Amino acid sequence: MRKISGIAASSGIAIAKAYVLATPDLSYNKLQVDNPDSEIQRLKEALDISKQELEKIKENARKSLGDEHAEIFSAHLLVLSDPEMIHPIQDKIKTENVNAEAALDETANMFIDMFKAMDNEYMRERAADIQDVTKRVMAHLLGVTFPDPALIDEEVVIIAEDLTPSDTAQLNKQFVKGFTTNIGGRTSHSAIMARSLEIPAVVGTKTIISDASEGDLIIVDGMDGKVIINPSEEELATYRKKQEDFEEQKRIWAELKGEPTVSADDEHVELVANIGTPEDVVGVINNGGEGVGLYRTEFLYMGKSELPTEEEQFQAYKSVLEQMCEKPVVVRTLDIGGDKELSYLKLPEEMNPFLGFRAIRLCLEREDIFRTQLRALLRASTYGNLKIMFPMIATLDEFRQAKALLLEEKANLLNEGVDVSEDIEVGIMVEIPSTAVTARQFAKEVDFFSIGTNDLIQYTMAADRMNERVSYLYQPYHPAILNLVNNVIEAAHAEGKWAGMCGEMAGDSIAIPILLGLGLDEFSMSATSILPARTQIKDLSKGEMASYKEQLLSMSTADEVEAFIRRVTKQ
Amino acid sequence: MRKISGIAASSGIAIAKAYVLATPDLSYNKLQVDNPDSEIQRLKEALDISKQELEKIKENARKSLGDEHAEIFSAHLLVLSDPEMIHPIQDKIKTENVNAEAALDETANMFIDMFKAMDNEYMRERAADIQDVTKRVMAHLLGVTFPDPALIDEEVVIIAEDLTPSDTAQLNKQFVKGFTTNIGGRTSHSAIMARSLEIPAVVGTKTIISDASEGDLIIVDGMDGKVIINPSEEELATYRKKQEDFEEQKRIWAELKGEPTVSADDEHVELVANIGTPEDVVGVINNGGEGVGLYRTEFLYMGKSELPTEEEQFQAYKSVLEQMCEKPVVVRTLDIGGDKELSYLKLPEEMNPFLGFRAIRLCLEREDIFRTQLRALLRASTYGNLKIMFPMIATLDEFRQAKALLLEEKANLLNEGVDVSEDIEVGIMVEIPSTAVTARQFAKEVDFFSIGTNDLIQYTMAADRMNERVSYLYQPYHPAILNLVNNVIEAAHAEGKWAGMCGEMAGDSIAIPILLGLGLDEFSMSATSILPARTQIKDLSKGEMASYKEQLLSMSTADEVEAFIRRVTKQ
Repeated sequence: MRKISGIAASSGIAIAKAYVLATPDLSYNKLQVDNPDSEIQRLKEALDISKQELEKIKENARKSLGDEHAEIFSAHLLVLSDPEMIHPIQDKIKTENVNAEAALDETANMFIDMFKAMDNEYMRERAADIQDVTKRVMAHLLGVTFPDPALIDEEVVIIAEDLTPSDTAQLNKQFVKGFTTNIGGRTSHSAIMARSLEIPAVVGTKTIISDASEGDLIIVDGMDGKVIINPSEEELATYRKKQEDFEEQKRIWAELKGEPTVSADDEHVELVANIGTPEDVVGVINNGGEGVGLYRTEFLYMGKSELPTEEEQFQAYKSVLEQMCEKPVVVRTLDIGGDKELSYLKLPEEMNPFLGFRAIRLCLEREDIFRTQLRALLRASTYGNLKIMFPMIATLDEFRQAKALLLEEKANLLNEGVDVSEDIEVGIMVEIPSTAVTARQFAKEVDFFSIGTNDLIQYTMAADRMNERVSYLYQPYHPAILNLVNNVIEAAHAEGKWAGMCGEMAGDSIAIPILLGLGLDEFSMSATSILPARTQIKDLSKGEMASYKEQLLSMSTADEVEAFIRRVTKQ
Repeated sequence: MRKISGIAASSGIAIAKAYVLATPDLSYNKLQVDNPDSEIQRLKEALDISKQELEKIKENARKSLGDEHAEIFSAHLLVLSDPEMIHPIQDKIKTENVNAEAALDETANMFIDMFKAMDNEYMRERAADIQDVTKRVMAHLLGVTFPDPALIDEEVVIIAEDLTPSDTAQLNKQFVKGFTTNIGGRTSHSAIMARSLEIPAVVGTKTIISDASEGDLIIVDGMDGKVIINPSEEELATYRKKQEDFEEQKRIWAELKGEPTVSADDEHVELVANIGTPEDVVGVINNGGEGVGLYRTEFLYMGKSELPTEEEQFQAYKSVLEQMCEKPVVVRTLDIGGDKELSYLKLPEEMNPFLGFRAIRLCLEREDIFRTQLRALLRASTYGNLKIMFPMIATLDEFRQAKALLLEEKANLLNEGVDVSEDIEVGIMVEIPSTAVTARQFAKEVDFFSIGTNDLIQYTMAADRMNERVSYLYQPYHPAILNLVNNVIEAAHAEGKWAGMCGEMAGDSIAIPILLGLGLDEFSMSATSILPARTQIKDLSKGEMASYKEQLLSMSTADEVEAFIRRVTKQ
């Protein structure tokens, strides 16, 4: 038995056999062969089985994540059927009398090098496709197992260095009971995906890959951030009990699914969800979300070779609005740049991308991109309760410019005879310190604020939260953050506007009592955090929390704040 | 005549012939020679004249900038006398019958490649030395002029793509009347150096290199950021007049040299200077500085192959304190990382270095480095009025840790029988939003604040000021900045502490009236800005400026603030 610690990334207890997700050894010997025809036959079989696998993966991805995510596998399938790729391999076997492995590898590498050398992001992506697909075919030629999360058909816990978006796209919740990785943090892609899929996960264990082997029995404790390898009977019993308790807890949470969110002293707040695609709305509804507090539209722009059309965007926005019926949906306009890049946009390399040309800064320069999105949003506005939010606003000028473009496109559409809702609220993300500090000035002109704590914290502390050497400064409970949040809420209320929060902090059990006391109106979080949060708020008195406000705001350190909250809320 | 615009980097008018500082074409033909001895003689002559030049450059650098800056040229001279470098060149000429150019180039490249390949920063720097020196020798072999700012002996305006620290180290103020560059901004290295040397400069012209030729008559207008190439007689007369007016203005400023800084309504503030080396103190005294508000200690650590010893640091700090007599000297502890790297420290590559592992974050981890500096400072403290300031403080914990280390080293020194002053104030730079927001909490524990606006602005606006695409967001007059500055000053005064400012903003003629009104106690700026600032403050009423405070703090944009100040101060 061995117990290791990591970062609790997604709640729940998973108990199952280890499935190690790693690329196997694909080295081979180049051989001269006597019978090239049998090599060609071997190649054909490897290609056929690879195609069948990819079809299955594509179908799974479509079901669990939607058409968009499935598209990458269509590209992979194309490679396997492309005569310009397959014929040269066959020719090489015939003319050079080499084995299929050597012919496949050398031909694929020739294409990969050629495509990579082209100064064209699209061709470079084709090179990556060929690389992926070649690995799979090679594995079949060599008779080694190519780990395929989509093909898993028994209950497992996945063990991996890290999970890529394409890995997570393939996870089938029915069999994948949990996962644990060597790297990553609470806000890394794999952690966010785990919460959205409701799979228990512990990330950043540093050593799980070397500590665990295929088939080991693994317990993943997504609450305490522990992983146990080959537990004792006693340990196993303890965790089975913990698992049952968690399931029971979930049943209790589920009872609040259709209820509004009301504190012990009868004050109502709104619990809404962060989503990335129209497919995510199911989870929002299943988890009793009162709306969408942050619809990240980047996914529409990512993993493609060109900008999404107005029509594509319109369909996506309409779908979300219709599914949510008349509940509020806050759509954030394009937030690209920084760590999020688009292959077809060719953004310049920057020394400090987090302090660079991104989000609204880019949209105000690339009006063509921005206007297309605004038109799609305006056209969709009649299908539900749409609110539009601009990201990375640092100055009132930027908000005024963005809003002017929105009004221009609205006028254009009305002129074209297209219906547009008259009740669209227009607000901003508060994620830059300047905006939090001058919230009073902004509150006169915006309809709402949504505080984006992930960025606000990193700018306020001047610490890149992805940089491990300074990540200790990512302190959501730091009094500076609380003062800025308070300033934003007070400014909003002074002008009769509402203030929400859509960073990780909004779903955090220490932050929730503080935010309730500061008067936050709307909490936007992972869908799966909604019911636990509603349960927690049911037992909190907003009045009591408000009475601690001045005390909290004048505390000196984040630790002091946390200790205080733990004490008064008995956590 | 041609007029181009750039960024006004250093005040004054320069009128002189263009001196283009660019590496000449050093291409050569590899030839077979009949008389190798004459090639060896040519090589010897080129080496000799290069040595003489370098001796002269080294001597100039020592005089104008001190021993430290001269050291790089000693390394260059060593290369030219190293038999391990010179013999192989001679051998090559003899055995291969090639010309000196080819032998020099091929041998040098062999060494450069070898040194570069070593995984050792020191050897890589040696490679850079050889590269520099080889260029000079090659130029002499080819008979082309190698531009040498140190050898300039007539009045010129230097035209360059950009000026490196080693270029500026060689400038002789007697002959270099001004300079203008293609790239750079107001806070780039070359601009700061120009102000410190009191040489008029216009940077960031984008095109001066292609627009001007060697020998053109050039006017540099460092007030309006204009450069005129081959002016008409009329233009020339206008600018000669402007030059005289500026000199007259300087005489008026000089009258206030020995005076305190007093506003029209008789309120005193302190005008002090930012310095980088003990040699800079002369300029502080010549410009009537009332102290040093920011002694950047990084230069002690830069351009070296190892950390400076405690004794070296002690001598530097002692020299500054003694020269300043009993006037206050605020020393900032090591602020390395971000854009400032040390070859021998091997800091990790970071995605966002400005949000990374730097300054106090590094010092608290590398206690060895920090304690050495603290000991040197404490030992020097008895030679004047020392104040110690920690950079990049984001949390009170960090300040407490840093101060604890200081007190530990003080106790150690007292135990060793070393005298330490009992009156050392210990304060912090306020350059991270979190610290500005929670200044109230800090004011209880620090002795003073010094607001570092260069960084505070870039973090508050989440915009890298070195990134041209977002540099429009570097807005010193933005109401968010004014609110944070005000918060810091109010917090300091509430606890009976003082608040200063040591960013570029403190010497800015629009910012000065605002800061005076907010109650700033100490303004730290380039030495050459002190007398103009004192002159400006003499005519300002602090009471009047204070009466605009609420109005300024609730304005919406930086433009609104600037327009208001221009109106009320008639600028």
